[in-house]
Amino acid sequence: MADELRFPTGLGTSDADSISLLGQDLAADLMGRVGFGELAFWLVAGRRPHAGEVRLFEAVLVALADHGFTPTAIAARLTYLSAPDSLQGALAAGLLGGGSRFLGVTEDCGRFLAATLAESSGDDVDAIALDAVTRARAEKRFVPGLGHPVHKVEDPRTPVLIRIATEEGLYGPHLRLFEAIGRVHPQVLQRRLPLNGAGVCGAALADLGLPVEMLRGFALLARAAGLLGQIAEERRRPIANEIYLTVDRNAVYEA
Amino acid sequence: MADELRFPTGLGTSDADSISLLGQDLAADLMGRVGFGELAFWLVAGRRPHAGEVRLFEAVLVALADHGFTPTAIAARLTYLSAPDSLQGALAAGLLGGGSRFLGVTEDCGRFLAATLAESSGDDVDAIALDAVTRARAEKRFVPGLGHPVHKVEDPRTPVLIRIATEEGLYGPHLRLFEAIGRVHPQVLQRRLPLNGAGVCGAALADLGLPVEMLRGFALLARAAGLLGQIAEERRRPIANEIYLTVDRNAVYEA
Amino acid sequence: MADELRFPTGLGTSDADSISLLGQDLAADLMGRVGFGELAFWLVAGRRPHAGEVRLFEAVLVALADHGFTPTAIAARLTYLSAPDSLQGALAAGLLGGGSRFLGVTEDCGRFLAATLAESSGDDVDAIALDAVTRARAEKRFVPGLGHPVHKVEDPRTPVLIRIATEEGLYGPHLRLFEAIGRVHPQVLQRRLPLNGAGVCGAALADLGLPVEMLRGFALLARAAGLLGQIAEERRRPIANEIYLTVDRNAVYEA
Amino acid sequence: MADELRFPTGLGTSDADSISLLGQDLAADLMGRVGFGELAFWLVAGRRPHAGEVRLFEAVLVALADHGFTPTAIAARLTYLSAPDSLQGALAAGLLGGGSRFLGVTEDCGRFLAATLAESSGDDVDAIALDAVTRARAEKRFVPGLGHPVHKVEDPRTPVLIRIATEEGLYGPHLRLFEAIGRVHPQVLQRRLPLNGAGVCGAALADLGLPVEMLRGFALLARAAGLLGQIAEERRRPIANEIYLTVDRNAVYEA
Repeated sequence: MADELRFPTGLGTSDADSISLLGQDLAADLMGRVGFGELAFWLVAGRRPHAGEVRLFEAVLVALADHGFTPTAIAARLTYLSAPDSLQGALAAGLLGGGSRFLGVTEDCGRFLAATLAESSGDDVDAIALDAVTRARAEKRFVPGLGHPVHKVEDPRTPVLIRIATEEGLYGPHLRLFEAIGRVHPQVLQRRLPLNGAGVCGAALADLGLPVEMLRGFALLARAAGLLGQIAEERRRPIANEIYLTVDRNAVYEA
Repeated sequence: MADELRFPTGLGTSDADSISLLGQDLAADLMGRVGFGELAFWLVAGRRPHAGEVRLFEAVLVALADHGFTPTAIAARLTYLSAPDSLQGALAAGLLGGGSRFLGVTEDCGRFLAATLAESSGDDVDAIALDAVTRARAEKRFVPGLGHPVHKVEDPRTPVLIRIATEEGLYGPHLRLFEAIGRVHPQVLQRRLPLNGAGVCGAALADLGLPVEMLRGFALLARAAGLLGQIAEERRRPIANEIYLTVDRNAVYEA
Repeated sequence: MADELRFPTGLGTSDADSISLLGQDLAADLMGRVGFGELAFWLVAGRRPHAGEVRLFEAVLVALADHGFTPTAIAARLTYLSAPDSLQGALAAGLLGGGSRFLGVTEDCGRFLAATLAESSGDDVDAIALDAVTRARAEKRFVPGLGHPVHKVEDPRTPVLIRIATEEGLYGPHLRLFEAIGRVHPQVLQRRLPLNGAGVCGAALADLGLPVEMLRGFALLARAAGLLGQIAEERRRPIANEIYLTVDRNAVYEA
Repeated sequence: MADELRFPTGLGTSDADSISLLGQDLAADLMGRVGFGELAFWLVAGRRPHAGEVRLFEAVLVALADHGFTPTAIAARLTYLSAPDSLQGALAAGLLGGGSRFLGVTEDCGRFLAATLAESSGDDVDAIALDAVTRARAEKRFVPGLGHPVHKVEDPRTPVLIRIATEEGLYGPHLRLFEAIGRVHPQVLQRRLPLNGAGVCGAALADLGLPVEMLRGFALLARAAGLLGQIAEERRRPIANEIYLTVDRNAVYEA
């Protein structure tokens, strides 16, 4: 039966003399010749991106890498304070906050746009957007990518990412629908909300043809770099203990 | 007292109109202008790397991204099988294997080389290497970076990374000492072991001036990309259930 | 403003001379006087359970503690192999598999039963069950707690837990509805499926008045004990490396 | 070759009609008849504890379950705020703080006591303690279990656990040596430090014959119950968002 055990993979394999990754010779063909963001795209999408796709993709990762003292950054710092012997634990703790409320928006928005496009027909993108926002409102669902707690008028990342996508010829149906939602939603919601950065990143990743079910993964990869920065700064200039003491000192017992 | 609460950071901050990262305007100065690997280096080191440093740094990340069906890759796939609703959990589970035995070698090697250089004097690097290996042997400690279970003669990543470092003018004392260890260790250990890829990556990261206490973090960042590739492949072509059943079917009860 | 910082809690607080937990003196009133399962119930429910409730609750934890070589147990062992320096990482990796597919059934079943009861009226529990199963079938949703890959006829945990609940006077509406589902589902699904152990545990926890949103947490607590057993056995009698090699040896590259 | 695949275990196995755990029939012999703490001991130690051992063991778990707003509790709450869809992620994030600095003391103390006893001879426990503390001081190592940031004079858990161990006839060499360290250390350190609760728990677990390499695991199991209490309270009376905003509002950019 073991003869029948087969675990197929298109990723990495190796033998005594060589290491293969994605069908390439890792040492001869990839190291020093492919960028890290480029490789990450290739690993997930199963195809090598061209230079313009790499630029847009890396712009998304840069946009999502660090957002200051987010709950995930604080959790990573507190975990590092508590278990400095396990850097991987502090990084993992930070990434575990990458769920529905914070880092999830990128994927939620990409999924929402893709699902809307899948069930729509016709070229009138504003009509498609209006219908999607109206249905979401009727079902009391949020429209992912709309609104931001800090950037109440405009999220500065949004126009920049749209410009980069346009420059690289990668402005596609998801970004187009996302911008349409930005135009039409006030008719339904009776107020104008900004298109947020996490949402536009999801739209751009979807236009890059990346699987929407994996979009959260790219937000996590970007955040992994940001969390390493947070942990490195915690080593140089610690604040986690002060955060802990601030909470502990102000604890009040209430049955 | 809250007036006195101060949580300093040199990373990200934002206000209603702008997002700042590393003292730069994220949207205007970083998105589309800085690569993801470049930003990761900057976030941890606190300084922007030049082009040659980026090439070497990304070559290291590429070298460490995926090693096929490692225990960490299998753990991530099994966790994804068990909790497909939580991509962050599967990624975190995989990263939690980044400890002393597998991903730790990069950091262990960088620390070993840095510590040896710190306590050594003189220019005779072979003598320094011989002394370091002899002491390690006497104390029954492994010399990190020596030997590989598969690449018993040569690890193909090692010469390539040394060549890239040399091309970029970044061949420094850590790589020099690492190569010296490769020359002299047979005198002590009575057999020739290859300089492995994880070790040469640690030496290169140390020559890049990155803090040795953070080297494991770069291995984790690289592996995060590899694990996303593993999870994406698990979605397309699942094997985790077959791995689980292979173990379960061959379970034997022994008191 | 710090004067206004208030972080209320009904759990633990301490001062120089005493430690308080749940409003009790930890050392004087709890240690040696309250069992661990009893405390876990108290911590989550906010009320101390009586002896019968403790017996049923601990029977649930015992039922869920270990199920042999599950994906979570294998992931914990592989993580321990890879990072033996971080027991917490191996345990966390195992728990991260406690998601929708495996450990989630306990919570899913409790939620399903509670939601069905909330929207039903009348005393005819078989009619309520029949309606719930019929609607689930119509909406192509699984009925949580029905069926088991191994125990195809009967899950031995189910009658025992129902007996214990009855003995302790804790057989309530959730268990009653769960048994009704066991009686009526063949009329809808055209085959008889067993009421599985994870599901009956969810029904029993719901009858204990525990919040359904926390039921997965009790499955995780139970599994934490099982995973410690797996890790302790991995120390005494390792198999993770053999699992890893079995997968690696049978890896087949396919583009 | 598959014929040769064998994965031995003394824990759980099952077939169509029965589930076996630790060689017992789970449903018939364990559910409702063995306590949860008792089972956790049995799973790790491989032997069933007697009633007195269970009482001492559960007293340790109760002592370690929750210590209020520790960094691990705050990390779990912040992770739950950020990813409420993944209770297992919040629990895992909290447990990942169970490293060298906080939860590690229990294991560190048990290891220190066991190692000291292993290399000592004679019955004069105070002399053994004095020698151990003197050597630790000379090597600039902390003596695990000495001192507490809050309980500067006495940790209330310590005398209670010693009393329970004595009542149950389980006061053994580790607790005896720990108390001796409490008597003699001022001669070496020139000040009197309290024997802390985490340390006495480690000593008691070691006297219970549990493997010292697993002691951290029991602290993690205890903390898992405390973290569930923290998460349940976070649901009822949230504070994580206020903690996050307190940090974010007081962030100060410094290059």
